[in-house]
Amino acid sequence: MDLSECYKKVRQRTEDICSPLQTEDYVVQPVVDVSPPKWHIGHTTWFFETFILKPYFMGYQEYDSNFNYVFNSYYETVGNRVIRTDRGNLSRPTVIEIQLYRKYLDDAMYNFLSEGVTDDVKELLVLGLNHEEQHQELLLTDIKYILGNNPLFPAYSLDYKTPEIDHTDAGMITLDEGIYEIGFNGEGFSFDNEHNRHKVYLNSFAISPNLVTNAEYIEFIEAGGYHDFRHWHAAGWDWVNTNKAEAPMYWHNIDGQWHNYTYHGLQPVTAHQPVCHISYYEAYAYASWKGLRLPTEFEWEAASNQFKWGSRWEWTESSYLPYPGFAKAPGAIGEYNGKFMVGQKVLRGASEVTSPDHSRNTYRNFFQPELRWQFTGIRLAK
Amino acid sequence: MDLSECYKKVRQRTEDICSPLQTEDYVVQPVVDVSPPKWHIGHTTWFFETFILKPYFMGYQEYDSNFNYVFNSYYETVGNRVIRTDRGNLSRPTVIEIQLYRKYLDDAMYNFLSEGVTDDVKELLVLGLNHEEQHQELLLTDIKYILGNNPLFPAYSLDYKTPEIDHTDAGMITLDEGIYEIGFNGEGFSFDNEHNRHKVYLNSFAISPNLVTNAEYIEFIEAGGYHDFRHWHAAGWDWVNTNKAEAPMYWHNIDGQWHNYTYHGLQPVTAHQPVCHISYYEAYAYASWKGLRLPTEFEWEAASNQFKWGSRWEWTESSYLPYPGFAKAPGAIGEYNGKFMVGQKVLRGASEVTSPDHSRNTYRNFFQPELRWQFTGIRLAK
Amino acid sequence: MDLSECYKKVRQRTEDICSPLQTEDYVVQPVVDVSPPKWHIGHTTWFFETFILKPYFMGYQEYDSNFNYVFNSYYETVGNRVIRTDRGNLSRPTVIEIQLYRKYLDDAMYNFLSEGVTDDVKELLVLGLNHEEQHQELLLTDIKYILGNNPLFPAYSLDYKTPEIDHTDAGMITLDEGIYEIGFNGEGFSFDNEHNRHKVYLNSFAISPNLVTNAEYIEFIEAGGYHDFRHWHAAGWDWVNTNKAEAPMYWHNIDGQWHNYTYHGLQPVTAHQPVCHISYYEAYAYASWKGLRLPTEFEWEAASNQFKWGSRWEWTESSYLPYPGFAKAPGAIGEYNGKFMVGQKVLRGASEVTSPDHSRNTYRNFFQPELRWQFTGIRLAK
Amino acid sequence: MDLSECYKKVRQRTEDICSPLQTEDYVVQPVVDVSPPKWHIGHTTWFFETFILKPYFMGYQEYDSNFNYVFNSYYETVGNRVIRTDRGNLSRPTVIEIQLYRKYLDDAMYNFLSEGVTDDVKELLVLGLNHEEQHQELLLTDIKYILGNNPLFPAYSLDYKTPEIDHTDAGMITLDEGIYEIGFNGEGFSFDNEHNRHKVYLNSFAISPNLVTNAEYIEFIEAGGYHDFRHWHAAGWDWVNTNKAEAPMYWHNIDGQWHNYTYHGLQPVTAHQPVCHISYYEAYAYASWKGLRLPTEFEWEAASNQFKWGSRWEWTESSYLPYPGFAKAPGAIGEYNGKFMVGQKVLRGASEVTSPDHSRNTYRNFFQPELRWQFTGIRLAK
Repeated sequence: MDLSECYKKVRQRTEDICSPLQTEDYVVQPVVDVSPPKWHIGHTTWFFETFILKPYFMGYQEYDSNFNYVFNSYYETVGNRVIRTDRGNLSRPTVIEIQLYRKYLDDAMYNFLSEGVTDDVKELLVLGLNHEEQHQELLLTDIKYILGNNPLFPAYSLDYKTPEIDHTDAGMITLDEGIYEIGFNGEGFSFDNEHNRHKVYLNSFAISPNLVTNAEYIEFIEAGGYHDFRHWHAAGWDWVNTNKAEAPMYWHNIDGQWHNYTYHGLQPVTAHQPVCHISYYEAYAYASWKGLRLPTEFEWEAASNQFKWGSRWEWTESSYLPYPGFAKAPGAIGEYNGKFMVGQKVLRGASEVTSPDHSRNTYRNFFQPELRWQFTGIRLAK
Repeated sequence: MDLSECYKKVRQRTEDICSPLQTEDYVVQPVVDVSPPKWHIGHTTWFFETFILKPYFMGYQEYDSNFNYVFNSYYETVGNRVIRTDRGNLSRPTVIEIQLYRKYLDDAMYNFLSEGVTDDVKELLVLGLNHEEQHQELLLTDIKYILGNNPLFPAYSLDYKTPEIDHTDAGMITLDEGIYEIGFNGEGFSFDNEHNRHKVYLNSFAISPNLVTNAEYIEFIEAGGYHDFRHWHAAGWDWVNTNKAEAPMYWHNIDGQWHNYTYHGLQPVTAHQPVCHISYYEAYAYASWKGLRLPTEFEWEAASNQFKWGSRWEWTESSYLPYPGFAKAPGAIGEYNGKFMVGQKVLRGASEVTSPDHSRNTYRNFFQPELRWQFTGIRLAK
Repeated sequence: MDLSECYKKVRQRTEDICSPLQTEDYVVQPVVDVSPPKWHIGHTTWFFETFILKPYFMGYQEYDSNFNYVFNSYYETVGNRVIRTDRGNLSRPTVIEIQLYRKYLDDAMYNFLSEGVTDDVKELLVLGLNHEEQHQELLLTDIKYILGNNPLFPAYSLDYKTPEIDHTDAGMITLDEGIYEIGFNGEGFSFDNEHNRHKVYLNSFAISPNLVTNAEYIEFIEAGGYHDFRHWHAAGWDWVNTNKAEAPMYWHNIDGQWHNYTYHGLQPVTAHQPVCHISYYEAYAYASWKGLRLPTEFEWEAASNQFKWGSRWEWTESSYLPYPGFAKAPGAIGEYNGKFMVGQKVLRGASEVTSPDHSRNTYRNFFQPELRWQFTGIRLAK
Repeated sequence: MDLSECYKKVRQRTEDICSPLQTEDYVVQPVVDVSPPKWHIGHTTWFFETFILKPYFMGYQEYDSNFNYVFNSYYETVGNRVIRTDRGNLSRPTVIEIQLYRKYLDDAMYNFLSEGVTDDVKELLVLGLNHEEQHQELLLTDIKYILGNNPLFPAYSLDYKTPEIDHTDAGMITLDEGIYEIGFNGEGFSFDNEHNRHKVYLNSFAISPNLVTNAEYIEFIEAGGYHDFRHWHAAGWDWVNTNKAEAPMYWHNIDGQWHNYTYHGLQPVTAHQPVCHISYYEAYAYASWKGLRLPTEFEWEAASNQFKWGSRWEWTESSYLPYPGFAKAPGAIGEYNGKFMVGQKVLRGASEVTSPDHSRNTYRNFFQPELRWQFTGIRLAK
């Protein structure tokens, strides 16, 4: 597929994700971690304008200089940004105005790409497309939060297909101690945080081929897991008590039956599905209650070709830290990953809402330990 | 005018106020005191449904039982309400869904009114219309806040007419000491907080026939008024420092020239206009700096037939307290005014965005001393 | 009594109040409204040094220039002050160091007074002594808070004498409508906020000769008064829910029996004692539940020679506002009262911990409506 | 040395540390992370009572059952504890009362130890003594905070000896890539978090034999390091701006000259001393500005026999996580370390206020990245 086609395909998918939304759904920001959908569609457009067209497309006319202020996310190098908590206060630019911006930018991009581009620009373009794929995932999780916290529990789309589960009755997979190579070394795109590929010494360990299911997690709830401090980190125990946590996010106990909000609306919890929307604190407490533990990201990667993954982002025990030899790119692009390498946990795998072709076993996702709005899950190790 | 016509006229004005809005403008809640326009149009509809149609219209079918939860404001008697800070998180019901609710309710109301109503119901209807007129004023002030805090400073409507100012060169009006009658005693509608009409003993006093102008207020700013604690209440001084207040709300100093956001967009401040969007703390500090004071609400009412008023809600020195003989109505309607009679200051007059026929010289508005989003102004006394 | 003797008597009483304390009790500040006792004894000393000796006693040597920074309370005119929340973080100066400062200042004062003073200075001295008497009251209430919130509930002093109650079986006292004179006009000291004496028109009203007792208040608790929003202001209802208020401050329900912390330690609540340590919100809600109301400060003063008062500061319905003709004194002394005239309610009477000779029926105390650590009570009117 | 002598020596050192304090210094808690000295001396006593005498000393009489409530720190297993922010509000028990408790407990311990103890008890005793040594370090850092944040800047003790610096002109030390053994495997006491000793694969790296000095750190300040977001983590940049950080903790710029609070009072900063009292965020930003990085805890341990350490706790790039095979002890003792293994960074080395014999190259200290009140420093790697 040529660059224009790639570009078109990725951009189109963003619009497909938004097509079931009402105009009002594009606007709100119910919590600071969730961005309004219209911000996502403006921001991904601003990214191409700022990092490709403005520096590299001779004669390009900026669409609207105010938009830099509105759609920057966290790139300190390129000017003041709307502070994140304020995004949900902005009714303008309207959805249609942003769609016009998007159209203007896309037209300019097709013109630009039709002239042929240098390798440097190609690299930026691929980064921009991967960036947009990340925002597609965020769009889906943010939309779920927006609709799932509305007292009317509206469905997002009845066409949404919940993936089939791969469950096996096989026991734990064991790996021998020794040196393993970790990090990206294949063809194609990868993020800076997957480099350098390097050696890690692992002790022998065992890891489950299955994710923890809702039925298994309900056992933990019913055994009083949320009320027994022994299984929790001190910070996790504070989190439980401050938030009065009793179950995964989106779960509601209606007349003794657990329900959860899904893209189809409020539904009874499906027993055999992998548990979803849990914090790291909950994943850790569950593992502790089972007498097991979470895998490190190195164990996960070393064993990843021996089990199926891809429906849940899986919490690992590892903190998000640079690999040996990691170096930030110069300029704003260098702000992409490195500046977040403190206070976050690594997740491995991918989830049912990850964009196609946007997952690999060296991909490192990362979130603060209390966050639950991603499609997070649990795989146990020992 | 018969009841149906009155009803139609008031309800239509709400829709006229909203007609320049984009769908997105209906949704946001940038601060807790501002409600999303779609909430206002749903809430005023819910009011008639809850207090008139459900109890009095035999066979009336509630439109949607979830809406009670969404559109209740602060009536504890009628069930849980969406906490005020959450209103801006709700993308659903959509604007169109609320407009359909509004249409359904209006049709039912016309049917109901065509059958003739008792005096009790008529009284509730008049209350409901006055309630809607209050929300029309709030709609206009909330819309100003929503657009005026957007970095693009979009105009609301170029058709909006800023009222002419009545300025006189006459000196202060003086009144003799003695007993004055205060409170409502005319025909037509009044709120419970305007009763009972009662006697108040006033010392002799003088009051200005004019409101303080922007030009006069700029003198206060330029004299360092915001930096001299001697003119401020202790609580006001904390407010200045916490909020880094330097000028009225909506004012921006651009290259040494004061601008303010108006319904026509960002405009240079007009010198001879009455100053607007100031807190009680600022009104008090300005008066102190001038060696004068604010009038009490009793002084204001006693002198009110000797000056023009109606473009600004005017801060008074009086706290919002019950008049002698004040009594709450039984039930939810009784929650209307009495429960706010602590910690608020009285404003008298009316403003340029007050609904027609919704002002009188006994009307008591009230706000916390730090609030500025209303069209508040200053009249001096001594 | 000559000035030196007056001075000595008042200063000695401060020391008497502190004599049962342990050194540690002088240091802590459990909430922002409570000051450490050592701060009170330093601050009252600083007051005389700053406003009398430094300006008027030729050749006076300031004890320690750092102490201005540490012991200023809220007088913005005389330099930076330790912000109020930080007072409890200061272990130095030590109690002994402050006692030495106190001794140094007292010696200088006696020398100064022995030379004879002008009327201006005499006026400041009397203000300083009244100021110290106010801090004596605060010392006693702050000490109660410090010990009463300690899990060991230590007694302050078994020598403390709880006053006898004056209870009468007579019914409500009624006063006719008409003009009453309000404000100070006697001999001796008064605060600026008691002036000017002025005329007020009152409707006829009735007021109870007795304070509400603990037994009566327990009826309110048992009738579910803390769980029925109808009796509360909106702000009061928020306060109840935020603070999970269920009873007056210092009350603990132990095995179904109400106890309260007293200067003698934790004791069963005495049924016939006037209820104490309640907020304005609670006083208002109790009155509403009884179908009655609180008196205004004008009603209270007009009727005050017909009932006994002096064991509780009594909440009134009045907000703390300037009387007609009120004017601040120039300079720092002028910061004494006027700057607090927003957002506070007036209390009338005096309490069992008020200093002797520091009460009169024109005295206006004032606090925010949520505060309870003073010896506050309820008198009903209608 | 026999057990009683060991016990006596460690306990005596706690009292020596406190001997220069005034009674008032024992009481205050200026920030949540600092505990009042009297709490430390009570808590270390409570530890021996709770974990040794009550379970193992037949017939032991608990000193005061209320003290469990007051002196528990974070051991959820043994009952409710005074929440950490409240410690500074407690004037009772007094310092003398706690010293009597300490004496009572020590007498009982000597009796108990004289009878001979089992290996299990011996292990607990050694843990208790190491625990007390940790609190000795905290006492010294908390005392520094209490006095160093007092506007009078009182000296702690002029007898305190600032250690000599070991500075070498040699260049960086380099280690080859390969497998290194990490974790405790010697004789004597170690904490659970130092186990299991395990293999780690390290790339080749270089590490400085010297700590970064004040003079070097001032270059960073003067180069605008605190104002250049590029060197900071996103969370660090928020920290800088929220706290308006401009220099290490305790530093004050007086007339253009940097001073810092020391145990001798406020002193000019000594250029050749290692920089101290910096957060992880600052350590990271400094390293980034130099084009270098912090070592991991594994690199530090692997190289630690080739450089001098012991005057500063040194921030590493590693997050505080369990070693392979780490297991919590059963019961309350198991709460010691494991529950903190999220959100904290590892520090290696020891500091000038670490207790003698309480340091080793496998010791893992840990703090949140924003904390600065420990004697923290910077060693660079690449």
